[in-house]
Amino acid sequence: MTSDIILTGDRTTGKLHLGHYVGSLRSRVELQHVYPTFILLADVQALTTHFERPGLIADSVRQVALDYLAVGIDPERANLFIQSMIPEIAELTQYFSMFVTVNSLRHNPTVKNEAKERGYNDLYYGFLGYPVSQAADIAFCKATLVPAGEDQIPHIEQARKIVRRFNELYRPVLREPRILTGGRLTGLDGGSKMSKSLGNAMYLDSSREEVELKLAKAKTDPARVRKDDPGHPDICPVYEYHRHFRPEQCADIHELCSKGGIGCTDCKKLAAQAVNELLEPIRERRISLAGRMNHIDEILVEGTRKARAVARETMSEVREAMGINYFGG
Amino acid sequence: MTSDIILTGDRTTGKLHLGHYVGSLRSRVELQHVYPTFILLADVQALTTHFERPGLIADSVRQVALDYLAVGIDPERANLFIQSMIPEIAELTQYFSMFVTVNSLRHNPTVKNEAKERGYNDLYYGFLGYPVSQAADIAFCKATLVPAGEDQIPHIEQARKIVRRFNELYRPVLREPRILTGGRLTGLDGGSKMSKSLGNAMYLDSSREEVELKLAKAKTDPARVRKDDPGHPDICPVYEYHRHFRPEQCADIHELCSKGGIGCTDCKKLAAQAVNELLEPIRERRISLAGRMNHIDEILVEGTRKARAVARETMSEVREAMGINYFGG
Repeated sequence: MTSDIILTGDRTTGKLHLGHYVGSLRSRVELQHVYPTFILLADVQALTTHFERPGLIADSVRQVALDYLAVGIDPERANLFIQSMIPEIAELTQYFSMFVTVNSLRHNPTVKNEAKERGYNDLYYGFLGYPVSQAADIAFCKATLVPAGEDQIPHIEQARKIVRRFNELYRPVLREPRILTGGRLTGLDGGSKMSKSLGNAMYLDSSREEVELKLAKAKTDPARVRKDDPGHPDICPVYEYHRHFRPEQCADIHELCSKGGIGCTDCKKLAAQAVNELLEPIRERRISLAGRMNHIDEILVEGTRKARAVARETMSEVREAMGINYFGG
Repeated sequence: MTSDIILTGDRTTGKLHLGHYVGSLRSRVELQHVYPTFILLADVQALTTHFERPGLIADSVRQVALDYLAVGIDPERANLFIQSMIPEIAELTQYFSMFVTVNSLRHNPTVKNEAKERGYNDLYYGFLGYPVSQAADIAFCKATLVPAGEDQIPHIEQARKIVRRFNELYRPVLREPRILTGGRLTGLDGGSKMSKSLGNAMYLDSSREEVELKLAKAKTDPARVRKDDPGHPDICPVYEYHRHFRPEQCADIHELCSKGGIGCTDCKKLAAQAVNELLEPIRERRISLAGRMNHIDEILVEGTRKARAVARETMSEVREAMGINYFGG
């Protein structure tokens, strides 16, 4: 049996935050030691929503790469590459497009949401097809495991169906992927998932003071008015930070909060400490790496070169399976 | 001012017929001496409707190439290439997809027709996007003139709009195309345009006997019952063949027919003669070329290599214009 291969990545629309860390960065750092790993800087997918701001995407490619390396992704183990530099992914997307119905795309939750907001007809064609392009991102390197947030479950399921259909139609040269879901972190506003676009994010490159300030302002258990009221940590966003970032102490915090033994202000300070302990080494590495951007570029060029070699090989098999590999090779 | 560049081609879903000849092959043979010419064997576009029959597409690639060469396309002048071997076209399609709305695609007449037949939701995503991919076919080599049938007018208009939008959004590195419409030939059933899928076509490789037989059965002026009834050549499909294939005699035929001076059987024989005179040298060249398929392959490989070099250059400018040419080159 062939072993698993990992594909994961992020849209390059800005720096990464603690939500990314909890959702998948943390597990990627561990998994890179276990499985061959491809990490995608999804700049083409970023264009589906940011085609009018390509400058932001270009800048984000390097920022996200910095975040990866700062967090502990090891370019010797994980293959960092840039989506737009692998035209074979666009090619595979096109082949998949032939047999994916418009209907199945309209049922994708992300597409559905966007359609609700802007009207279905005003969707851009590329946006409508982004599940197809995502299937190609995964299939080109024959990845079987995709560490990603829970919101990605329907996408990976669709990718799996697309790959299966290809294999049935032609020959089973591609592998069906499955998701490895990570955790989920509530935003600092306590409202929903931490997200760049909601403005409730704590970025991985936040300074010590930013961390303290943002956590000081974070929402807590809304039922708790006075310091010695009993709290409800299980519904408190700040408690989530304890749970994720200082798990060894979170039982104590849970108990203290539940009986009103610790005020929110103090609890937030402890949470900020925990986050700062996590971010301190990441921050340092990030600053040191940012001083050597040439080195980052070399890593991206080399990772992309390797990914492209894999892409070429897969596409040769894909064309062969489809019977359109006219001159061999 | 930069001179015009021609892009033209055909979907590789079968051999070419007289309708193709009248619609654009004939003019391509002349235009190749005037303008740099790219001729696309559109196998990816063929997949939009034939993804379940890739074997037919693979076979058609060489058949269509044979037709081109037999008709007089000179590979030293016109660059014959295979769409699926230029992944940069898929790449450019993807960039165009970002800013083309679903709505504008739904208004395309070919898409509309297909949607009427199978229901909009059951359309395939790739089929819906075929005007986008066609825009990329034209834009990648900066073609400005597209010799094609009248039915292509809305497609080329859409391609022009897509290119214009790209140039506005980023930088004017692409060129807006315009169509060069050729004639149109009625099918042998007299019903509508000659078309492979309607089964009313006369193929370029038809034998002398097939030509005679098919023309003998062709529909003529339906108002004419007896041999010496006056005919109506302007609404007679067979007269169209005289007009296109023996123009120097067609005034005589027009007069004779109009006054009942020639019967349909004789008129059809004359038309068959005219068609056979056209097809005779084409047929001979086709047979001789078919005996040297290695030579055809060499022409396709070399043409594709050249087209790909052009594609790479254009894509480098495209990425530069979009601001996503991260490492130059």
